[in-house]
Amino acid sequence: MIWSTLAVAEGGTVEEPIVFAGVLLSLVAIYIASKIGGEISNRLGFPPVLGELIGGVIIGVSALKLVVFPGEGITASDSLLMQLLQVTAGLSPEAAGQLFREDSMIISILSELGVFILLFEIGLESNLSDLLKVGTQAVLVAVVGVVVPFAAGTLGLMYFFHMDAIPAIFAGAALTATSIGITSRVLAELGQLTTKEGQIILGAAVVDDVLGIIVLAVVASLASTGEVDVTEVGLIIASAVGFLLGVLFAGGLINSAFLKMAGFFQTRGGIIVPALILAFFLGYLGTVLKLEAILGAFAAGLVLDETDKKEDLEKLTKPIADILVPIFFVVVGVKTDLNVLNPAIPENRTGLIIAAFLITVAILGKMATGWAVFGKDKLNRLAIGVGMVPRGEVGLVFAAVGSASGTLSPALDVAIILMVIFTTFLAPPLLRFVFPQKPIEA
Amino acid sequence: MIWSTLAVAEGGTVEEPIVFAGVLLSLVAIYIASKIGGEISNRLGFPPVLGELIGGVIIGVSALKLVVFPGEGITASDSLLMQLLQVTAGLSPEAAGQLFREDSMIISILSELGVFILLFEIGLESNLSDLLKVGTQAVLVAVVGVVVPFAAGTLGLMYFFHMDAIPAIFAGAALTATSIGITSRVLAELGQLTTKEGQIILGAAVVDDVLGIIVLAVVASLASTGEVDVTEVGLIIASAVGFLLGVLFAGGLINSAFLKMAGFFQTRGGIIVPALILAFFLGYLGTVLKLEAILGAFAAGLVLDETDKKEDLEKLTKPIADILVPIFFVVVGVKTDLNVLNPAIPENRTGLIIAAFLITVAILGKMATGWAVFGKDKLNRLAIGVGMVPRGEVGLVFAAVGSASGTLSPALDVAIILMVIFTTFLAPPLLRFVFPQKPIEA
Repeated sequence: MIWSTLAVAEGGTVEEPIVFAGVLLSLVAIYIASKIGGEISNRLGFPPVLGELIGGVIIGVSALKLVVFPGEGITASDSLLMQLLQVTAGLSPEAAGQLFREDSMIISILSELGVFILLFEIGLESNLSDLLKVGTQAVLVAVVGVVVPFAAGTLGLMYFFHMDAIPAIFAGAALTATSIGITSRVLAELGQLTTKEGQIILGAAVVDDVLGIIVLAVVASLASTGEVDVTEVGLIIASAVGFLLGVLFAGGLINSAFLKMAGFFQTRGGIIVPALILAFFLGYLGTVLKLEAILGAFAAGLVLDETDKKEDLEKLTKPIADILVPIFFVVVGVKTDLNVLNPAIPENRTGLIIAAFLITVAILGKMATGWAVFGKDKLNRLAIGVGMVPRGEVGLVFAAVGSASGTLSPALDVAIILMVIFTTFLAPPLLRFVFPQKPIEA
Repeated sequence: MIWSTLAVAEGGTVEEPIVFAGVLLSLVAIYIASKIGGEISNRLGFPPVLGELIGGVIIGVSALKLVVFPGEGITASDSLLMQLLQVTAGLSPEAAGQLFREDSMIISILSELGVFILLFEIGLESNLSDLLKVGTQAVLVAVVGVVVPFAAGTLGLMYFFHMDAIPAIFAGAALTATSIGITSRVLAELGQLTTKEGQIILGAAVVDDVLGIIVLAVVASLASTGEVDVTEVGLIIASAVGFLLGVLFAGGLINSAFLKMAGFFQTRGGIIVPALILAFFLGYLGTVLKLEAILGAFAAGLVLDETDKKEDLEKLTKPIADILVPIFFVVVGVKTDLNVLNPAIPENRTGLIIAAFLITVAILGKMATGWAVFGKDKLNRLAIGVGMVPRGEVGLVFAAVGSASGTLSPALDVAIILMVIFTTFLAPPLLRFVFPQKPIEA
């Protein structure tokens, strides 16, 4: 209200209503991109999530630049929406800069909340005992999916491209990631989440996530100090195992606490709010234990799936997921910088060659996991392998850490990003084709 | 992931996962306060929103200090949750300070999103033609509710307290506000939103909001330049009228656009996302037209209420409102600083006397509105008057603008804040008693 006179207070701070208006405007662009992209993708027979990713690319840094995030050489003047807001709200360039930073941070956090709710929902839809039944298979798939791409990538870069050990190890490590977000969303959209293949992929993706954290800890300390901080790596392994086992064993306790709360509350939100209290707390715990918030979300969903409020909870979570989850996938697309494909830049040309190698290893290395599973069942081994391919947001973290460590050459940096983009955008259509054709669950 | 090594990058920026963990932890505290407070309030026969406000006070700056917001002399070390996060995540004091600012901004925006969704939901539950039927009554109630408290407050302060005209006018202006948020939420909880009284109060609160923006524009320019900026005030009036009439006339067009979108989309979120696109866009428009985002939310809900997707939309909005709306009311409580009641501070003692006068005028002046309505119907005039009493978040904006303008003495500043607190916390229980006793809609 009447913020016009107060738009920029003495401290140069932009007033909250304008920050809020910027968030609303960004969400409008993100939602339009998600719905148009998702819808087209769906009608072409692909999972909607592919369209959301591409919709994000179109409104993002690579094309229309409606929504962009601060980064190297990117300021408020690079964002069309921020320019629109600057004009319509009459802001100074300094105020626009501050607005850009604050709105970007808020949209990033909303997108984190999106993948968080996605994993909570996936946890609700998964069945703990089914998941435990395929536990050994899942661990095997995850381990093979870490070891094979890592070894092949690192050794290949050292022998064929004559790279030093440290950058080669870093690139190899980036190949080990699997994006739970992309994989689980596509599985849900294909109605394959509760099949045996789906459960193996999901379980393996979770284990892969934990392994990825450990691998990243190892290579990050290797890159910064030249040696591995055994204590830290040990601590991470201990906290990962402790967290997952702790949640599993405390499951019954958590459930009865939740049911007591849900039974006691007569006011609105009596089921969903207690469930989120639990999920958010486990998310916080996951982060401070140096794991990830989404592991807490998945664990919370998995545990609450065992209660008789499960169906109410699924129904209540759906619209919340509908408005938050697309933000995450569009933002992944928005942040995807396709300028790395521009062959006019010399590093990109070298990068493209390395990328071709990395992409081959990335796909074949994860495909191999399908043949690691054993047992008498006729499993769709190809589908399991393909399910592990997308690097998504997890791959981007490796790229960002590598870039920040300064150990990667610009060409290798470009190559890793290209590998992440390629595997991420390739996985949804590939998964569509390796699973038997069912109508897409819209 | 592995943010521990990256928790504070070179620029001193805190990594996103920690910011996210801070948001999760703050939401856990806010949700616990909202559910416990709301539940106790409900069982004592009061509207749940009163308990959410008090729950906020208990975890906020006045009591436990679990969640606090940056302000004069308030830093990260005043927030228990930030200290917990600092210890559990191993942050430096500088990083904790940055985290505190960023998390506070994000929680504030989530609370804005809460009142935004509340007004969207209230719009959906209201009926445009019912509201238009009571339009004249509502305008009359709003105008009386602005003129009477303003005149009585300003003149009273000048004659009884010998104040200068400008501060007296400011305090008088603060008396004109009515909180749509508090009023509409209580009406909904009492099941009175669709009664004639409820529609008059709601319509009057909306008109009052627009009048309040105009009054604030007048007094703010008076306080800063000593004269009224007629052009700016004219522009605000024109944009308010233009916005509301524009939305009303474009209603049919907006509805058919929405129905086309909702009919076309087969993927998840096909109804709620197009509705939010519309609401968020109107919210943005409301802000840049120098009105308010919540007016856009209310208008969007009101217009979409006329479509045949109305029931689906209400059902989908409910869980979203359940998790966002309480954030707003708890945050109002969190930000309520009861230290103004401490009589050991000299300004507070003088403030208490002025406050007693302002509170009397605030309540009686709004009560008078009930007798402004005409017509043959037997209306609950007392209820209409009480419905206009809460100043809530709108009153806090007046207090903040007055404080920032430097024209208010510390005692008058304290008195205005006390008036806002008193009317806000008094209205929910009062409304409970002036409306016929129905069971509370939980």
